[in-house]
Amino acid sequence: MRDFSVTILGSSAALPYKNRNLTSQLVNYAGQLFLVDCGEGTQIQLMKLKVRFMRIHHVFISHLHGDHFYGLIGLVSTLHLLGRKDDLHIYGPAALEPIVSLQLEASLTSLSYRIIYHLTSGEENELIYEDERITITSFPMVHRIPTTGFLFAEKKYPRHINLETAEKYGVPYTAFNELKAGNDYFLEDGSVIANSLLTDEPVPPRSYAVCSDSLYNEELAYRIPGCNLVYHEATFMSDMAEVAKAKMHSTAAEAALFAKKAGAGKLLIGHFSARYDNLLPLLEEARLVFPETYLAEDGKTYQV
Amino acid sequence: MRDFSVTILGSSAALPYKNRNLTSQLVNYAGQLFLVDCGEGTQIQLMKLKVRFMRIHHVFISHLHGDHFYGLIGLVSTLHLLGRKDDLHIYGPAALEPIVSLQLEASLTSLSYRIIYHLTSGEENELIYEDERITITSFPMVHRIPTTGFLFAEKKYPRHINLETAEKYGVPYTAFNELKAGNDYFLEDGSVIANSLLTDEPVPPRSYAVCSDSLYNEELAYRIPGCNLVYHEATFMSDMAEVAKAKMHSTAAEAALFAKKAGAGKLLIGHFSARYDNLLPLLEEARLVFPETYLAEDGKTYQV
Repeated sequence: MRDFSVTILGSSAALPYKNRNLTSQLVNYAGQLFLVDCGEGTQIQLMKLKVRFMRIHHVFISHLHGDHFYGLIGLVSTLHLLGRKDDLHIYGPAALEPIVSLQLEASLTSLSYRIIYHLTSGEENELIYEDERITITSFPMVHRIPTTGFLFAEKKYPRHINLETAEKYGVPYTAFNELKAGNDYFLEDGSVIANSLLTDEPVPPRSYAVCSDSLYNEELAYRIPGCNLVYHEATFMSDMAEVAKAKMHSTAAEAALFAKKAGAGKLLIGHFSARYDNLLPLLEEARLVFPETYLAEDGKTYQV
Repeated sequence: MRDFSVTILGSSAALPYKNRNLTSQLVNYAGQLFLVDCGEGTQIQLMKLKVRFMRIHHVFISHLHGDHFYGLIGLVSTLHLLGRKDDLHIYGPAALEPIVSLQLEASLTSLSYRIIYHLTSGEENELIYEDERITITSFPMVHRIPTTGFLFAEKKYPRHINLETAEKYGVPYTAFNELKAGNDYFLEDGSVIANSLLTDEPVPPRSYAVCSDSLYNEELAYRIPGCNLVYHEATFMSDMAEVAKAKMHSTAAEAALFAKKAGAGKLLIGHFSARYDNLLPLLEEARLVFPETYLAEDGKTYQV
């Protein structure tokens, strides 16, 4: 099975706090790196973790609160200074492009590579990336400014060929792609060998949803069912529920309820307020509702 | 004598490198904090060093290359999130204001405090700050985009009153300000007591010059004579002199020659290229020309 994991680069909300950096995470799908959000200091975190910058081709920005994107311009500049040639795709709100451009113009910088901007909508689901193996969809969150989450979904694996049976029936290699796609095999005499005899069910496809800053949103939970892993912000604990609501953030218990309603396999909570030095109470609060909850920790990698 | 020191927050050029952060330094004059440049991660450095952010009222940006100012928007936002009320004065090129404003607008942020922008000129010396004790002057450097250095100069201390002599002649306290200013004292019978009898020479005023990114500029050295401490960039060593010239940076030897021509007391070199893991060769190169050279080290404080 292909590697599908997420490395937390920053788990802090609004302000950096001790060993918690500003929001950013790196999704690795079979060696392809997707950066989600890029708070100040993200490039420094990437260096510390020895991530090879040039392998990042896609950057997703959930919304334009500074703790989620003030590190983007520094990363863009560093890629230029390192002599990048490959295109960089940036997905996010429309105002990102002028913000990046204005800063590059101020330093008379003409980038060594091309940035291709893809606008996300804060209003509806959108397929924003697709290749042979995965799709990435943005979906609206409920926050003070237009904000999206991102769903990384593996495509169905091809059916798994049972080599012994295939040999027994004399099926040539050239027919394997048809079998993998689920088609039956026709012998020269016109008789049929059912696909189910020649192949096994593949492993089910996996999915990972990043739910950035948002009010608790039950309706959304129903729209991203059955993810293996959900990341959801948990800025506050329940005793701060009123503050959370006013700031359009979620509590740890709400993140857990979200994961429960969404039928998630596991939940990763992050985006912690700097008011919490010790995060265990947040973890405990969430686990009461959804036992398979884990704390996002800077520098740590979680399998999807 | 009042505290007059500089703390290096970042000594790295262009890219962050291991324990060297992007350019920023904090000048402390008698408890007043002046931030000079603000590369990405500056707010994190300030937190690590437990600097009380609210004590910073003046930020100086030498030029708009990203390694010198991409951390400004994060600091501005954090001050807002911390509920700052006091004005913040920002000194720098004209394009700073729209860059900051555009990013605040994108997040619908209306700051809790006022920013007052002061434009610096890349073409001539300007007195940009003055209070009872110090002046700050910006002066042009020679770089790829308009760039200024900053001279922090203590005003003359008042003359030091010799209390014994003053008592002997029956000089009242109310006359002390006149004596401090250098005036003679007139007795009631009209006779004069020379100021030099009643006061001693004060300690000489100190000065500190921050020479940010620049080609070696001998003419400038003559215009900031006799600083107790000069910070000068030393991005490269002499074997890279051609690259330094092409990029309009200085070598360690050039920084040292600058300090020598300027008659500086001490030289602090910084803004090191990420190509140098070990900085001792740069220090040695500079010390051959100007023995009183020191390396800028992140987190370290140097007395002026």
